[in-house]
Amino acid sequence: MGKREDINYKLPSGFDIELLPGERRLELFLLETISSVFERYGFTPLETPAVERLEVLQAKGNQGDNIIYSIEPIVPQDMGDSNESSDGSSRGLKFDQTVPLAAYIARHLNDLTFPFARYQMDMVFRGERAKKGRYRQFRQCDIDVVGRGSLDLLYDAQMPAIIAEIFESIDIGKFLIRINNRKVLTGFFKGIGIEKDKIKTCINIVDILEKVGASKVKKELEKEGISENIADEIIEFINIKGGSEEIFATLDRKSTELKESEDFLVGIKELKDVIKGVRSLKVSEDKYCIDLSIARGLDYYTGTVYETTLVGYENLGSICSGGRYEELVGTFVGDKLPGVGISIGLTRLMSKLMDANILKPMSASPAQVMVLNLDRDLIDTYLEISQNLRQAGIKVVTRFEKQKIGKQIQQADRLGIPLCLLIGKEEYTQNQCRIKILNTGEQLDISLENLVEEVRKILNNQS
Amino acid sequence: MGKREDINYKLPSGFDIELLPGERRLELFLLETISSVFERYGFTPLETPAVERLEVLQAKGNQGDNIIYSIEPIVPQDMGDSNESSDGSSRGLKFDQTVPLAAYIARHLNDLTFPFARYQMDMVFRGERAKKGRYRQFRQCDIDVVGRGSLDLLYDAQMPAIIAEIFESIDIGKFLIRINNRKVLTGFFKGIGIEKDKIKTCINIVDILEKVGASKVKKELEKEGISENIADEIIEFINIKGGSEEIFATLDRKSTELKESEDFLVGIKELKDVIKGVRSLKVSEDKYCIDLSIARGLDYYTGTVYETTLVGYENLGSICSGGRYEELVGTFVGDKLPGVGISIGLTRLMSKLMDANILKPMSASPAQVMVLNLDRDLIDTYLEISQNLRQAGIKVVTRFEKQKIGKQIQQADRLGIPLCLLIGKEEYTQNQCRIKILNTGEQLDISLENLVEEVRKILNNQS
Repeated sequence: MGKREDINYKLPSGFDIELLPGERRLELFLLETISSVFERYGFTPLETPAVERLEVLQAKGNQGDNIIYSIEPIVPQDMGDSNESSDGSSRGLKFDQTVPLAAYIARHLNDLTFPFARYQMDMVFRGERAKKGRYRQFRQCDIDVVGRGSLDLLYDAQMPAIIAEIFESIDIGKFLIRINNRKVLTGFFKGIGIEKDKIKTCINIVDILEKVGASKVKKELEKEGISENIADEIIEFINIKGGSEEIFATLDRKSTELKESEDFLVGIKELKDVIKGVRSLKVSEDKYCIDLSIARGLDYYTGTVYETTLVGYENLGSICSGGRYEELVGTFVGDKLPGVGISIGLTRLMSKLMDANILKPMSASPAQVMVLNLDRDLIDTYLEISQNLRQAGIKVVTRFEKQKIGKQIQQADRLGIPLCLLIGKEEYTQNQCRIKILNTGEQLDISLENLVEEVRKILNNQS
Repeated sequence: MGKREDINYKLPSGFDIELLPGERRLELFLLETISSVFERYGFTPLETPAVERLEVLQAKGNQGDNIIYSIEPIVPQDMGDSNESSDGSSRGLKFDQTVPLAAYIARHLNDLTFPFARYQMDMVFRGERAKKGRYRQFRQCDIDVVGRGSLDLLYDAQMPAIIAEIFESIDIGKFLIRINNRKVLTGFFKGIGIEKDKIKTCINIVDILEKVGASKVKKELEKEGISENIADEIIEFINIKGGSEEIFATLDRKSTELKESEDFLVGIKELKDVIKGVRSLKVSEDKYCIDLSIARGLDYYTGTVYETTLVGYENLGSICSGGRYEELVGTFVGDKLPGVGISIGLTRLMSKLMDANILKPMSASPAQVMVLNLDRDLIDTYLEISQNLRQAGIKVVTRFEKQKIGKQIQQADRLGIPLCLLIGKEEYTQNQCRIKILNTGEQLDISLENLVEEVRKILNNQS
């Protein structure tokens, strides 16, 4: 069999997200850590198919159009259902988890219990321009709580508690959860006299403050016809710094100065309730702050918004973001179904944290023990020992290849397997086994009867 | 906000695989059970992207052509890399895990350690005619071991041990792993004088024995120009029944009767080695058998083949199948990379087992405790208690909605949450808490100081 030189077996651009075994094991460790925090707050696991009808994916306006992939059979055929054979191009790959969540709730409305709290860690697909660190397929870890009719602000307060627990568990150093409320921003813009149809544009301009700096934001605002005075007032506002009580004092004072302050006051009240809840949930004060410059670009956010930055690595951007939305989930149902959620772009985050050496791949193999092959005549013993260890829950690789001992141990080392078991003719006749501990080089001779117990003891000491 | 009546939010046909929360939790339980067995045998987790180049997906001939989906942006654009803007239709969704495994090994050849043992539980996509129980997206749980140059037959012997452990853990009743070797079949066909170019067709005909019965197989063979005598001999052969030793005795005798028996003898030797290994691995004798009618339709199998049936539910078809292949993985590398693997079609299996009432959904929520909202003034206490329980690893939902106690308990019941905590003003002033155990109706009054400990005790008693 010759090599198929003609085939380009590389992954298509933007889909080169596949991991080596030790990296994939790290990803699974992160997924387990994240999902166990989600579950501690009662979020239930969910998954929706990669494929939805295009009309569903496009239901929130055409903002997704330039990133949606459609799917089509490469050989046109009668697919056996009139619905699709007549319109084969009506299906696309999901580009986020939120639109499919709205559709999921519509599809199963009567089977679900509200408030409905679910987490999802599926792959999403975006046909964006490929560049370093931006992928066309990636994993997003999302949670959302959706209420029927209304949803208490304490759900918004739980989100920072969950974010804090996740990043404390993953142990990636200092992080800061920045909290704001869109109504504070929109209320402020309204209060200083910005026309209603310009508020959305102003929000989007403010949102890029961190990326481009204040003077650029000011320029952009002025481009939109905002006067220099007002632009300065906006810059000053989004730069208000301090502890929560300090900021609330400033906001209360500001509210008396505004021409119209109704929306602004609603926003402040919501933000106060959320911060009070965060405090009651015992999130440590150095883990979160109010940041009036956080706007979140996405149109559908209506209240609380979050961003999380890694202290000292602010250039990585937000590592966990989200917010409150009122209208999104109800799209297909016609009911009021407000929700609040956060999202971690795990593929991108992990790739960045590995590049920055904050996270390191795990060992390439999950195995804890390698039973070496010293003598093919003893293979039945090797198999029996392996099975005994496995029955005790220990992860075992049995070597079948004929190789020098050194080579076999080298391989265990490459795979990150901590223990090797050596049984030659001599050990066998004495009903003994030699355990080699790879990281210390230590060797122990142990009676086969006590093997399971001894291996367990050594593994416990190592971890 | 009105209902978007115009949008069909149903899933496209064949993609309606999404599960309700309790079903998804069952799927995750199965995935954990399966992966923990895989890991006990040292298989390492892996995942490859959903998308590959079409030329990779089609590398094993055009057999996949009528099931491959291509992907394309719905808005044609310059995707920023010449490679793809010039050929946007060159990407497709993977339809199995084996072809991507071959490409993965080619892509990372020097980073991997051989024999390379990996498991994968990804989604695959097939544009097949949609019908009940056949999906266009589904999850496959695969393991494969791939050797460089050669691969010991004991890897083949490990597969039935793994299959047995999985189905014993899932506890789905009696099952039977049926083992054969393609060389026994092809060797036999050769030995009774069937022309070389007809052997593949005969294998495919034999493969449908269980579905269509012996007389239909005979008719199909005769259609291919096989004489009645020879067809009878084939039917007799694939129907040979008995214990392993009995069958081996029959095969040994048969080999002396054949005109040409070289391939047949190689097959028998391999099958004997594999069965010997299965025995050494202590797989219980009632869990497996030799079945000479097992052929596996797929072209790439060259030696050992497996199918697994659920006793009493044979109509479900094989619930775990696989085999040995020599040429598949080397396709992109040009090296000899023999492999052996098995696959569980989890989406289909779970759906069938739920229909047959063999598997039942789990509770809709992972939460173990619901802290009821009896008095909004006590919300800080509710939050504090919830956090204390969570810190002890207990999964907690805090109720924020104002509802009658009965309603709240009803909701905990619907979600399958076993315990409710009730703290009203009276309990609060006495520093007490009432625990209601939902499945017995029992109620306990406990001091708040001992709460975590008591809850843990009750949960341990329940499980």
